[in-house]
Order: sequence, then C-alpha cells, then structure tokens
Amino acid sequence: MFQPIFMKEAIELSRKNISDGKGGPFAALIVRSGKVIASGTNVVTSTNDPTAHAEIVAIREACRVLHSFQLDGCEVYTTCEPCPMCLGALYWARPNKVYFGNARDDAARIGFDDLFIYEEMEHAFAERKIPMVQMMREEALTVFREWEAKQDKVRY
Amino acid sequence: MFQPIFMKEAIELSRKNISDGKGGPFAALIVRSGKVIASGTNVVTSTNDPTAHAEIVAIREACRVLHSFQLDGCEVYTTCEPCPMCLGALYWARPNKVYFGNARDDAARIGFDDLFIYEEMEHAFAERKIPMVQMMREEALTVFREWEAKQDKVRY
Repeated sequence: MFQPIFMKEAIELSRKNISDGKGGPFAALIVRSGKVIASGTNVVTSTNDPTAHAEIVAIREACRVLHSFQLDGCEVYTTCEPCPMCLGALYWARPNKVYFGNARDDAARIGFDDLFIYEEMEHAFAERKIPMVQMMREEALTVFREWEAKQDKVRY
Repeated sequence: MFQPIFMKEAIELSRKNISDGKGGPFAALIVRSGKVIASGTNVVTSTNDPTAHAEIVAIREACRVLHSFQLDGCEVYTTCEPCPMCLGALYWARPNKVYFGNARDDAARIGFDDLFIYEEMEHAFAERKIPMVQMMREEALTVFREWEAKQDKVRY
C-alpha cells in the first residue's frame, strides 16, 4: 500500500542530490515489509557513470542487501517515471509495484531525454538517432544454442 | 565501419561467460579508434546484480577508462539486440553506432524476458505485470522546478 512518507523521503533525497551537486533531480527508495532497505540518487555526472540513475543505484544496493538478484516482495518509490533503462532494470529485478512522482513529460520539459528515448524505441533500427545494425546472427546464435543445451545453468 | 573481428571476439566472450558459469550468454565490446577500450559480459547471477548485463558492464567500464559519462566516437558490438534497459543505457551514453548479433526474439526463445519487456512498455501503467502508479506529482515537481532554476548545474 502506498505510504506518503516514503515518497516524501524520496523527494527530499532528490532535492538534497541537486543541492549537493551529485547529479540530476532524481531519487528512489526500495521498501520491503514497511522498511526502506535501499535508496539511490542520480549520480551520473559526479561518478562519470551514465547508468547511475536513482533506480539503478537503488536496485543494485537493495540486491546487495538481500543477497539476491530479485526484489521479491519489494515496492519501489521513485520521484520520476522510470526512463526506459530504469524501467527495464525494474522488470529484471521484479519488485511487486512501482510508485512514481513526475512523468516522462515533466522530465523532458527540464531537459532530460526520457521521452525521446521512449520514442526512439519505436523506430526501425536504421532510422534511430543511434543507428543499430544486425550482423553475424548465425554465429552469435551458436552460443544461444549452447546455453539452451547447458544442464547446470542458473536462469533468471 | 563494422569489423567482423570485434563481433567474433564478443561472441567468444559470451561463450566463455557461460562455460565459466558467470551468467547468461551475452557479451559486449566498446571500440574507439579501432581499439577495444572496454568489454563486459552478463554477470547477473554470479554478482546478484540484475543490472549487470553485458552492455551495462561494458558502458560503465568504458566510461571509467575515458573519465567521461559519454561514449563520444565509440562503437558498440554486442552479441544480442540490447534489452530495453541496455538500449536506454546506450542512449544515455551516446555512442555513434551499435552492432548486434542475435535479435530479441532469439533471446526470448532461450528464456530471456527481452521481448516481454518491450511489449510491457506499450501497456498502460495499471495493466503492466509490475503495476505502476503515479502519486504526489505536484510535490515531486517542486524539485524539478528547483533544478530548472539552478545556475551551476551539470547537464547530460
């Protein structure tokens, strides 16, 4: 169930993140059994890591705490609708629910690419701003077949 | 320009990754001025990090090497079409071009959620397998306004 206190805490973290000069105005919390088990803020520019969005930082920290690559039973509070990278990360981490404050349009209005990236994903590979070309599929596919045949694999 | 030798190297890395038991059958290389500056493989299950896909690992390493949060002048070779998380990360890192081997359907056929996540992104928030709910937008928006007004911010 949504708890306003956690969203308030995330919003305060995002405010502190910009006054501390650590990165963009974003923060996220991971909550389990009514307790915050991890938090993250956007530290892209201060750590030279373009993947260091609030949700990614929080997910990595929560998984470290839980010794698991899955966020079973967790809820995520994030101050902005996750960008495609963070939404993808959430799907791989599989929490129960995600609460968000600002929308992708709000992020676009203050200069972030979230909306642009969502739009790019709908374009054909060759028409994207970062062109993508498929090459050597047959050779790459041999390793997928080896994975399929592997008996002792750890699925996720 | 596409260099088959780099895709071959990425494919071999992905093969070694599964025989070493480190994670899924995926690897990526970042190439700049004809040289590999970073590589990554999928280490999700061996590091308990759901974000540790090959591209994310390679991007983080390349940015560490370049002391930059942008992959200017770089090309990415990845053994599989990036999932939404990794595609998003690539857009934030902004390399010049991406070459990929297997497609999202190939990944789906051996049990990975790439295709499923692409499909989920097209659904309304409430209809997603991981439900998403917008809450307290007005309060969250105050921090976006503070970001807009901030004079000394580092954009990305």
